[in-house]
Amino acid sequence: MIQGLPGFRDFFPEDCARRNHVVATWREVSRRYGFVEFDGPALESTDLYRKKNEAGAEILEQLYSFTDRGGREVALRPEMTPTLARMVAAREKHYRKPMKWFCVSNFFRHERQQKGRLREFLQFNADILGESSPQADAEIIALAIDLLRAFGFTAEHFVVRLSDRKAWMDFLQSRGCDEAACRTALACADKLEREPEEKLNAKLAATGLTVADLKAFIAAGSPEAFAPVLEALAARGLTGFVQPDLSIVRGLAYYTGVVFEIFDRSKNLRALAGGGRYDGLVKGLSDGAADLPAIGFGMGDVVLGHLIDETPAAAEKLQAALALTSDVFVVIADESRRAEALQIVQTCRELGLSTDFPLKSAKVGKQFQEAENLGATHAVVIGQEWPQIKLKHLATRAEQTLDHAALAPTLKTYKLHS
Amino acid sequence: MIQGLPGFRDFFPEDCARRNHVVATWREVSRRYGFVEFDGPALESTDLYRKKNEAGAEILEQLYSFTDRGGREVALRPEMTPTLARMVAAREKHYRKPMKWFCVSNFFRHERQQKGRLREFLQFNADILGESSPQADAEIIALAIDLLRAFGFTAEHFVVRLSDRKAWMDFLQSRGCDEAACRTALACADKLEREPEEKLNAKLAATGLTVADLKAFIAAGSPEAFAPVLEALAARGLTGFVQPDLSIVRGLAYYTGVVFEIFDRSKNLRALAGGGRYDGLVKGLSDGAADLPAIGFGMGDVVLGHLIDETPAAAEKLQAALALTSDVFVVIADESRRAEALQIVQTCRELGLSTDFPLKSAKVGKQFQEAENLGATHAVVIGQEWPQIKLKHLATRAEQTLDHAALAPTLKTYKLHS
Repeated sequence: MIQGLPGFRDFFPEDCARRNHVVATWREVSRRYGFVEFDGPALESTDLYRKKNEAGAEILEQLYSFTDRGGREVALRPEMTPTLARMVAAREKHYRKPMKWFCVSNFFRHERQQKGRLREFLQFNADILGESSPQADAEIIALAIDLLRAFGFTAEHFVVRLSDRKAWMDFLQSRGCDEAACRTALACADKLEREPEEKLNAKLAATGLTVADLKAFIAAGSPEAFAPVLEALAARGLTGFVQPDLSIVRGLAYYTGVVFEIFDRSKNLRALAGGGRYDGLVKGLSDGAADLPAIGFGMGDVVLGHLIDETPAAAEKLQAALALTSDVFVVIADESRRAEALQIVQTCRELGLSTDFPLKSAKVGKQFQEAENLGATHAVVIGQEWPQIKLKHLATRAEQTLDHAALAPTLKTYKLHS
Repeated sequence: MIQGLPGFRDFFPEDCARRNHVVATWREVSRRYGFVEFDGPALESTDLYRKKNEAGAEILEQLYSFTDRGGREVALRPEMTPTLARMVAAREKHYRKPMKWFCVSNFFRHERQQKGRLREFLQFNADILGESSPQADAEIIALAIDLLRAFGFTAEHFVVRLSDRKAWMDFLQSRGCDEAACRTALACADKLEREPEEKLNAKLAATGLTVADLKAFIAAGSPEAFAPVLEALAARGLTGFVQPDLSIVRGLAYYTGVVFEIFDRSKNLRALAGGGRYDGLVKGLSDGAADLPAIGFGMGDVVLGHLIDETPAAAEKLQAALALTSDVFVVIADESRRAEALQIVQTCRELGLSTDFPLKSAKVGKQFQEAENLGATHAVVIGQEWPQIKLKHLATRAEQTLDHAALAPTLKTYKLHS
């Protein structure tokens, strides 16, 4: 028997309901924030990703790339920003600024198998294009916070670690670093928590800096860079979710201002989300066709799923949302009345009710059992008494007999899920 | 500037809203019918598709297949049934029968560019597994009909052409056809409307049959095969949507009973949907791990989209569903009150209202213009009068002044979209 590929998921109905709940939550919070959804193709020209990323970049090493039947070099999308830049360049003039766009898409990376990493994953991305003010930075960070709050997380569960690439660049340039030295220093700052000091000092040698210099810069902080963003978040009552922390640098070369990563407070997991300001990237990716300042972030479904599972409040909230329910089960007590039962089934469905019934003759008790299995709130019993039928509320066992023509008006007035 | 690949779509916000409306409609009708959603990975082992399809089959010729970084032969999914069979074989015992499953997934085929065909497309698939009765056939066909009705189509716009592969096989075997001859005859029957008679007669020579024989069988119909399905559809009031038509054979070898295709009445387009009963396929694909009778169908988003565009009633219904709306625009009339405005924005969003505001200082008139552009129903004006604020209904220009603390209770009692 052929198996699914490692790192790829099957979504059985219970998994799919969970996935759809995550997606629906992302969409609902984005709607509240006035973001509109877009999407692109799952397959793009490989060059689109080569253009954004330096040769040797991890994302290129993990690309699912191949030559298609038409001889084109193509790749499954590993990230959204290049597609976004391509789309924005094509139609930027159609849209008022700022553009507040989000997407929920699947991405593909040939990752080593490890916790929090899959080879196909869902990711929420949100970007504000065409506005460079710290108000846009705060709007994006507030969105990230409220996305997580919508799953039941509080400031006890996660923290936004806020940094600033411009503060880093100002510091490094003040210490005489050229572009290459800046890149080396940032790469080392990114690894302060993971690599031994002597190894990092060796890498830093060419920059004229030491680990101690980097740590001193981080410890001194840079409050003035964060002030407007923190004020805007404070006005929204979100101060408790944010921690200025210059040790966050983000690996990617194109960030130009505020950057941030969101972690679980217990530090058990990889980052839940990350992003920042990238004011030159759209221009670069679009060959100058669109020159828009931008800030954005991504939030994947895999680490988020782990944190939901590990957080009782969030796990309970999810379970409540997934409880299996349906509205009506039509019990066919007399098989010779199947045609009448089908008519009732159709009526219920046209009322918008989730309605099921036995596809073959079955004992009445077994049918009621199936109604319970499906989480139906009501049973409608069709039998010899036709045109009289029975309507039964399954939780209370309350039951009434009525003419079949009275069923639709009766069901319409019910709050079925109360 | 790098372009998107031919046959692949960018979903700009207006396109994405339309796509999401189609998906939401498919899901809503499936929910009413008691189907549960599943999904699988976009990438599978190539062998999964080789196993189902005969060598040389069109679907294999159009496969996006390649060798991944781990040396595996993999392919982008061109269809769902092999994944469904794989999943069902793995966990069949967990689920009560019949299983009523649907999915909405993207599929990939390297098609020649033509109307109604793209290289990445969305497809709705629904299957009933574990029930062989004609009641299941009728349930699947009724679902297909009600999916299309939900878009605003009536019996004037589309028709289900209903056929039966078993009736065909009985006829062909009664005329002495062996398996190969049956296949040839069915392939010719599939092309009666498209290929010249002499060409088909040449192909049929080895079977002992002629085009005239096939046409006579089709003309005679086979009412008894359709009777139970037609009765069950009649009981639901759906007779007007169905036309028995033995000229439909479906190309694929694995169908074993009822087959159907849905076409627009004006015959301008390719099939909107197609499917049938495939009782042996799950067993074959799962190496015998799961032996379940099954019936299912697929409905793509591309031909459906063309028919919506060509049908005023459906196009209007879609446009109405897509009308841009938001709930609140917070006008900052006094920039020194931005912090207070942010607090109001946050309050509105936490009430679940779609809320926007200017990310930078702007004239009040321009802010009201932006509120209209976004389709906001209400504006909240924050200015020097704080803690008094103004709430304005944009359509009627009705306006009230209230304390900011009174805003949330006031908004809660409004039916904002009325």
